[in-house]
Parts: sequence; C-alpha cells; structure tokens
Amino acid sequence: MKSSPDAAPQRLPFSRVTEEDLTFFKKILPGRTITDPDLVEASNVDWLKSVRGSGEVLLRPQTTEEVSQILRYCNSRNLAVNPQGGNTGLVGGSVPVYDEIILSTSLMNNILSFDDISDLNVSLPGILTCQAGCVLENLSLYLADRDYIMPLDLGAKGSCQIGGNVATNAGGLRLLRYGSLHGTVLGLEVVLADGRVLDCLATLRKDNTGYDLKQLFIGSEGTLGVITAVSVLCPRKPRSVNVVFLGCETFEQLLKTFQLCRGMLGEILSAFEFLDSECMRLLNTHLKLPNPISDCPFYIVIETSGSDPDHDAQKLHNFLEEAMTSLLVTDGTVATEDAKIKALWSMRERVTEALTHDGFTYKYDISLPVERIYQLVTDMRQHLGNRAKSVVGYGHVGDGNLHLNITTPAKDPAVLAAIEPFVFEWTANFQGSISAEHGLGLKKRNYIYYSKPSQAVALMGNIKAMLDPKGILNPYKTLPDNL
Amino acid sequence: MKSSPDAAPQRLPFSRVTEEDLTFFKKILPGRTITDPDLVEASNVDWLKSVRGSGEVLLRPQTTEEVSQILRYCNSRNLAVNPQGGNTGLVGGSVPVYDEIILSTSLMNNILSFDDISDLNVSLPGILTCQAGCVLENLSLYLADRDYIMPLDLGAKGSCQIGGNVATNAGGLRLLRYGSLHGTVLGLEVVLADGRVLDCLATLRKDNTGYDLKQLFIGSEGTLGVITAVSVLCPRKPRSVNVVFLGCETFEQLLKTFQLCRGMLGEILSAFEFLDSECMRLLNTHLKLPNPISDCPFYIVIETSGSDPDHDAQKLHNFLEEAMTSLLVTDGTVATEDAKIKALWSMRERVTEALTHDGFTYKYDISLPVERIYQLVTDMRQHLGNRAKSVVGYGHVGDGNLHLNITTPAKDPAVLAAIEPFVFEWTANFQGSISAEHGLGLKKRNYIYYSKPSQAVALMGNIKAMLDPKGILNPYKTLPDNL
Repeated sequence: MKSSPDAAPQRLPFSRVTEEDLTFFKKILPGRTITDPDLVEASNVDWLKSVRGSGEVLLRPQTTEEVSQILRYCNSRNLAVNPQGGNTGLVGGSVPVYDEIILSTSLMNNILSFDDISDLNVSLPGILTCQAGCVLENLSLYLADRDYIMPLDLGAKGSCQIGGNVATNAGGLRLLRYGSLHGTVLGLEVVLADGRVLDCLATLRKDNTGYDLKQLFIGSEGTLGVITAVSVLCPRKPRSVNVVFLGCETFEQLLKTFQLCRGMLGEILSAFEFLDSECMRLLNTHLKLPNPISDCPFYIVIETSGSDPDHDAQKLHNFLEEAMTSLLVTDGTVATEDAKIKALWSMRERVTEALTHDGFTYKYDISLPVERIYQLVTDMRQHLGNRAKSVVGYGHVGDGNLHLNITTPAKDPAVLAAIEPFVFEWTANFQGSISAEHGLGLKKRNYIYYSKPSQAVALMGNIKAMLDPKGILNPYKTLPDNL
Repeated sequence: MKSSPDAAPQRLPFSRVTEEDLTFFKKILPGRTITDPDLVEASNVDWLKSVRGSGEVLLRPQTTEEVSQILRYCNSRNLAVNPQGGNTGLVGGSVPVYDEIILSTSLMNNILSFDDISDLNVSLPGILTCQAGCVLENLSLYLADRDYIMPLDLGAKGSCQIGGNVATNAGGLRLLRYGSLHGTVLGLEVVLADGRVLDCLATLRKDNTGYDLKQLFIGSEGTLGVITAVSVLCPRKPRSVNVVFLGCETFEQLLKTFQLCRGMLGEILSAFEFLDSECMRLLNTHLKLPNPISDCPFYIVIETSGSDPDHDAQKLHNFLEEAMTSLLVTDGTVATEDAKIKALWSMRERVTEALTHDGFTYKYDISLPVERIYQLVTDMRQHLGNRAKSVVGYGHVGDGNLHLNITTPAKDPAVLAAIEPFVFEWTANFQGSISAEHGLGLKKRNYIYYSKPSQAVALMGNIKAMLDPKGILNPYKTLPDNL
C-alpha cells in the first residue's frame, strides 16, 4: 500500500546516539542534556498532538558558542538534529520524526540590546536585538515599557519564540500594517550545519553590501541553519488603539467593507480579520464565548492603531457611519478600553482552540486572491456534504489568507482522501499558495509542487545541499521526499 | 605598483564575440542586436561618467524567452554578460568593465497586470506585475491614475527601471514609510545564467511554501540572474501630501526634531531627509536654486502622506508649533500644492546634480546608527582640510543613511588616498555599512569586508558558484577579487 504524502518517509541512515555522544553533550551542557523520557516527552509531541517523534535527547544550550559546538559535533558524527523553539507550529515541523536530537532554544532568552542610549540623548529608531529563544509576548511586554511594539503578533505569542517566528516566517495579525519579517528583520545570527557561525546580526535599516544572506533563513524552518539571535525593527507603540467587531450578511459585503475601510481608515488600519458563523458556533459551544453582536453569517474584526485618539475616533466614526448607511454591515460594537479590546480579539484568536474541542481537525492555511478566499470554504462544504462535522473559515482578509478547518469526530482516512488533494488542486487552480504562513514542515512537504514550479524546488534542493550537505538539520521537513 | 582596490581586475578568460555569435544574436533579435559603436557607446559609460567599458554588442530582448535564449547561448559559449537597466547606478555596476555583452532590458517595458478586475467588483490589494524594463516614473504615473503609488521613489525615477531597482535593492525616499523591496516585492521572474527560467512571479502577500528564493536576487546586482519581471505590492495613493522645509542650528537639534516628528506625526510621516549648508551653497551656486528659508547650518525635508487632509494639517500644525516653541527649528516653510511640493523636494533631490557641476566627486553612501551620521562629515572635513573643494552631507535621516560627497577640481589620487580607507575604517568602527543603498558594483566590491565577516562573503561566493558556475553574469562586480 502506498503511504499518504504527509506520512513520514523512511528513517534516513543517520547515526544513533551512543553513550560516548551523551558524554560529550553532558560535558558541554552540564545539567542541560536531558535524557529522562518523561522530560523529553513534551518536546516530542506537537501542539496539536498530531505528530509524535521518538527523540531521546533534549539539548538546552544557552549560548551561540554552545549551539556551534553541538552542530559541529553532530555534523561530524552524522547525527540528525531537530531545532525547536516554542513548539507551536501547526505542520509538524518543530518535533522530531524519528530519533533526531532535539536542540531547544528555550534557554537562549536574553535581550541583547535595544536602542542603546546615545550620548546625544535622542531616541533611536526602535531596533531590538535578542537571542532566538525569547518568547514573543515577553518581547512585547519589554517593548511596551519603552513605548514600542513588536512588528508581529499571533495567537501563540505566550509560547512561541522569536527564533521560531523568524525560522517559519510567521505572519500573524499585524502583517497588513507592518509587513512581513523579510522586511522587518534587520539581522540574524545563524549557526550552520557544520557549526560555523554566520554573523549577519546587523542593526542597520539599510545595508547593500553583497547578497542579503539572512533572507535565506527566514522561512527555512530550521533546515538550513539554527537561528541563534535576531535583530528586528520595532514600530512605535500607537497612542490609540480601537477594535471593531462587525457583522455582514454576505462575503461580498465583507469584501466591500474591506475596500471602504482601506479608503476611510487608511494609514491607521492595522488589522482586518474575519470569521464565519460556523466559527462563532464553535466559540459559543466549546468555549462558552457569547456573540458580542447579533447573529450574522460573517464577522469582521478591524483594528486601528494611530498617534492621535481624536483623529482615530473620527475616522472610525465616519467609516462606521458609511458602512451602516450603505447597509454593508448589519450590526457592530466598538472597543477602546483594553479589556474589551482583548475580549473582541479573543473571538478571532481563540477559534483554533475551539476547533480542538470539536473533534479531529484538518487544518489548511491558504493564500488566494482576496475575492476567492471564501469560495473555497463554500466549495469544500458542498464537496464534503455530511462527511464533515464542521467546515469553518476564518483568517486574514487583508492578506488574502484563509484558514480553512474541517473537523470530524475522529481521524478518518476516507474524509482526508476527500479533502486532499481537492483542496490543493482548488488552490493551485487560482494560483494560490497551499501554505500562506504555517510553512510546510513534515505534513505539507510533498505538496510543495502545487505552489512552486519544479525549477524552484530543485534550486531549493541545491541550496539545502550547499548549506547542509549531510542533511542533518530538521530532516524530513520542508523539502519534498525524493528531491 | 599595486592597483587601487576599486580598479578593474584583469580581464577573465571569457570568449570573445565572433561573427558566428553575431549571426546567432541577429537571428533571434533581428534589428535589436546593436553593434554600431556610436549606438553602443551610451551603454558603455555610467551616469557619472566615471566608468567606461568596451562592450561591442548591445542586445535588446523584448521577452523572457529571448533573455533565456541569449543566456543559454552565452553560457555555453563562455561569453560574459552585463545586464543593464536604466544605467543610473553609482558604483559602476551597470556598465561593462571589458567587452561583456550588454543585455539591456529597456524594451521589456510592458505592464502585465494590475489587480485584475474581479467579478465581485471589489478593488484588490494593489498588486502590480510588469516586465523588468518599465521605467519607475512610468509605473508611478500608471498607478496614479488608479489611485495607487509605487512603494519606492528616487531621484533617478525618470530613467531607472524597476528590474534594476530590484536587482540593486534600491532604497530611496519612501523606505521610511513603506519599507524595503525585500518586503514589498511579492514575486520575481529571473533567468539564470544557463538560461533556465525561474518563475517566482507570485502575486500573493503571503506564501510560505519552501525557501523564499526571490530574496536572493533582490540586491544581487545582476550577478546571480537576470530579473525579467516583477510583482510588487503598491500602497494606496495618499489623499493628502504635505512637505515641510525646516532649518536647524545643530545636528543634535535636527535629531531631536526627528524624534519629535516621529512621535507627533506618527503614521503619516513618509520621509525625513536632510541636507547641510554646503549642499545649499552648491544648489545656489550651480543650479541657481534659491534657499526657500533663511540660512541655517542644516535643513530638513519632511513629507507627510495621509488619508484625511484636515487631520494631517492639524498634526503638522501641532508638530511645527512644538518644534518652533521649543526652539528646535529656526525657520521653515510648508507646501501643500503640487508645484511647491516639487520645488521643496528638488532641494533635496538635485544635490547629486549640483555636485556634478562642482568638480570631480567622490561618493559615499553610508549606513550608521542615526546619531553618528553627521559626525562622519565633520571628521572628514577636519581630516581633509583644504585638500577638498567641498565636503557635503545629505541623506535619509530616518533610515540612518548618509550620502557623504567630496569634490575636488579634478580627479586626484592623493585626495582619494586620504579619503580611503579612512571613510571605510570610520564606518566599520561604528558597525556601519559602507553601502547603504548604492550597492558594491565594480567600485566598492573589494571593500565588502569592512561591513561583512569573511564567513558571510565566502557563502556569497558559494551561492554565486552554484547559480553561475562559469561566472558569466556581470563579472568583476559585487563580490571581491580573489574570493
């Protein structure tokens, strides 16, 4: 029987960890070389509990030099390594597949610098430099005290680490306003497979001296090197933040609301997210979160961030008036205080959590031309009929990014066969991407050809071979089998 | 005698163009294979007239397929190729060094798509796809009619081409607001050295399926492939634009004005540029441009772009009142109408032109921590004493990017020896970049080690060898000799 494309391939002929190896690791990482199966267990299972490895060693370095020593050793011994940040990934990229050594960045959590105070007593442009293991939310709190914010925000912020964010090119809730990490990451320090340290940790906004090597590692999912430090350009903390929760009758009205919103809110628009009535039902049912407005087929979360509360309020008022008058939206509520802002945001952020209570979840993270994104949900519902328990759509309208999720009471190969490759073919048909922000990891690696031509995939293979000739870094991930 | 590091190295053993080669080119590019020396001449000399090659053949393809055929042939014949866009580069990267074949993208100037009208009649997010040879200003005019703008703008806009902009990772006047091309370029089509076409011409805001290959070519100065098409995310055209021209007594006050401005103008700030009194003197003397305000040691050009003219005017008024009251600025003028906006901008944009009338110009494009940028000008003036005719500083304060320019009545090796490596050592001492936005090209290639560690440069060499094993693409550029 042919195995499914997202199943793990055969174990590659890497060495197995010996007592001698453990002696080496314990010498360089005393007390931080973990082999107790109970303690290693959490690092073997992903957040969704959908993928489970059998790593026997968890290494917890604190410094770049330690990471370098580990990789130099593993490369010479042909030992496979699974770099791991907060382990919040959704495509099985952050846990071992077999017995890879788990290299956790969790103890690499120091902030290295933030806009060193200059002798001229002027504030600098908001450049944060930190180790890879800093938790995103901790960085946000650190910056909040200094009147800055991180350029990215996502539901997993309490656990995910900045190194993992960069390694997976995380998108999240602020991309619409502040752009992708390819633009906001100014520098990286990376340890290559053979232990060489690549110092591209610049803190300059502009630097055109040669090829921009750091870009290669942004989104490479730990397959080309281990990111050990990051410098990132942080925006000023907005003086005024508002969140609006709106309801629409049709997806076309939702898109027209987006268009209106882009025109009338302009430079203060910082997020435009949506969820459908199926998401609302799951939030109500599984998390007991009440609908803050009346029932509608579609809900929108709009966030504004600006420097003048009066101006922002006025822009928002004008927009809402126009949206109501022209009957684009049927109901809505506005939040300006922190608690209510958080409550409204949680309607969007906790959909993932609600889904985990609904049953076994098939998750898809699709980029499409914005006017197509809900059509895939409708088509999938029709296609699956009563074989699915729930088919829900939510995501980042502003970025053309749909999160399509399907649940069944239990894992069901027949349903999976009905979903895939249907969902990938549908996406490829409209020149979409089968992974907008989650990456490919283990689960989606073999579907890469739906979104990338073979020439491009072949070149990715060349780059992998150049940087990691033995293939020890995060094997079985990102690139397709039999490349 | 040892030649200077910016002199051309020896000609590499590429083949020389034969009659048979010309027959081939004329067959695939009838009427577009130029060999008349008078017609080829302009493509052999850079804009500054500081570098002159001796290319004998100018090819003017119209399609990607033609570029592919040219490169496949040249690669097999071991013929060197100099890709050329608008030829507005400042580091000798855009013209041949010896007899490289000039591959001009000038006839590849079609717009391929802009937000295809959808059947739902909603506007899409502003994604422009075009051939590499489109002139930046033409794209801006095309977009203006559709209520959008290009995310970049620079003085050379009337001649420079988008393909060259991307190949050199051009910065320019809007980077502060819209970020670098690494964030705004969504897709590229590139022809590799052996003629393979790499199709990464996505028009999606988000796509995490494998390595982001297009990033490699952004800023690679035509040494890794020839960019044939580009898709770029374009911002909405602002409804209100204001430009302010201010004068300051000290650079410290200028920096404090920047700090104040970032806080009070916030999200509507779109440029913060400066020039010093020496620049003003050159503008007065050589271009007869009068000072729009009273004489000051430093001048600032601030641009705001926003969606609400009243709000923008109020923010600007509040900022100016505070800047005047706190004596940070001593004089200023505001423009809201197009003609005056253009006039004020020209004070900043035409400094380069004024310099060409002042004498032989030594040009440096330095990135530094923002509080350091003028110190280099002061130190250089002191260092050179009366050996220089003028030492002027201007540039993008918001990005920490100084354009340091020095003139002498004629080219003077003794002055050059006094400037270099002094300027590079000074920059390296403060962890700056010796090329913020101009690139390395021919002139700066051997200075790369001042800003990049040897590990990084070695890896750049590996990438070059992987993508262009015979080294036919833009030889003698970007990477140092003897790598």
